[in-house]
Amino acid sequence: MTLPMIQIALDQTDLTSAIEVARRVESFVDVIEVGTILAFAEGMNAVRTLRHNHPDHLLVCDMKTTDGGAILARMAFEAGANWITVSAAAHIATIDACKQVADEFNGEIQIEIYGNWTMADAKSWVDLGITQAIYHRSRDAELAGVGWTPDDLDKMRQLSDLGLELSITGGIVPDDLYLFEGIKAKTFIAGRALAGAQGRETAAALKGQIERFWG
Amino acid sequence: MTLPMIQIALDQTDLTSAIEVARRVESFVDVIEVGTILAFAEGMNAVRTLRHNHPDHLLVCDMKTTDGGAILARMAFEAGANWITVSAAAHIATIDACKQVADEFNGEIQIEIYGNWTMADAKSWVDLGITQAIYHRSRDAELAGVGWTPDDLDKMRQLSDLGLELSITGGIVPDDLYLFEGIKAKTFIAGRALAGAQGRETAAALKGQIERFWG
Repeated sequence: MTLPMIQIALDQTDLTSAIEVARRVESFVDVIEVGTILAFAEGMNAVRTLRHNHPDHLLVCDMKTTDGGAILARMAFEAGANWITVSAAAHIATIDACKQVADEFNGEIQIEIYGNWTMADAKSWVDLGITQAIYHRSRDAELAGVGWTPDDLDKMRQLSDLGLELSITGGIVPDDLYLFEGIKAKTFIAGRALAGAQGRETAAALKGQIERFWG
Repeated sequence: MTLPMIQIALDQTDLTSAIEVARRVESFVDVIEVGTILAFAEGMNAVRTLRHNHPDHLLVCDMKTTDGGAILARMAFEAGANWITVSAAAHIATIDACKQVADEFNGEIQIEIYGNWTMADAKSWVDLGITQAIYHRSRDAELAGVGWTPDDLDKMRQLSDLGLELSITGGIVPDDLYLFEGIKAKTFIAGRALAGAQGRETAAALKGQIERFWG
């Protein structure tokens, strides 16, 4: 099977800083994400610029699309994104609209899981042909001290069993990766942990754990 | 009581067109919204520019914030927004983070209702001091032919009874306003219906119905 990849989330509030971080990490990440914060700060110019600077990386635009799916998806794919995120709270018609545009661009949709979703919702995503979802502790929940729970891990296993590849995020550290063994992991996403001075070592440690549990 | 206001949603994919629409409608709308599409297209520059062009209008940034609440809220309020939208699917800690930043700027949070929310969720928003929510048919649900249902109207009444002022959107036409009688309506939101050639007449017809049912 394909090994899980490493994804940097660029959540800077200005493009100049984001460009600098992306250059610093490009050699040890597989996927570059224009985070929601960066996308709202700088618009699709952020996606276009990072696409131009990193033509060979997978590029994600984290829009958490909730409505207006077709237009938002087209904007992001035209700007050079390979994947976009769509909120689990979106109406199924919105998710379908995003999927149709993604297909045109040979792109992919990632369902970003927030709110009171159900496994029946997840099945309806899979029925549309969606193959990816993102599972995380919210930044704010993390700040509030809410950790990875047995309930989280159980839900992740169920999603994985439905056929969804999961990108996993929210304070990811190498020592936690064993928790996700057996789950179809697409990427592990981190921001500051990869952008900081220890970024290269963190990436190497993540890769070591990935080899160990998915290799 | 204060009468419901009229809000234009700017969902253009470029700022030049949005500026033009805003100038055309400024004399007959109370609230100008930088829609999610425009905000993702042009970033916070869209909010700054519209704030500069329309210093006396209420300005909303429709971010549908789902995570990273404090940073996103600060970006939008610093750029000049009076209100920002936060997704009903956001963790309560995210909603709280947005509210705290809003209070700093004398701004307000609008909960944008999508997904599988519950009345218990709504009560938790009110408990945080939130006073506004947005209720709508999604653009895509509307395209799929899903109309205003008795269930929608019942939920809107319950939200209103909890103390939330509602902004109502999704194919709003003057002839539908009677449906919402008795509901605490903050604004009626429209896009193309106000931006088009008949925009001024549509606004006048909406105001007539507002006087009739809320006056």
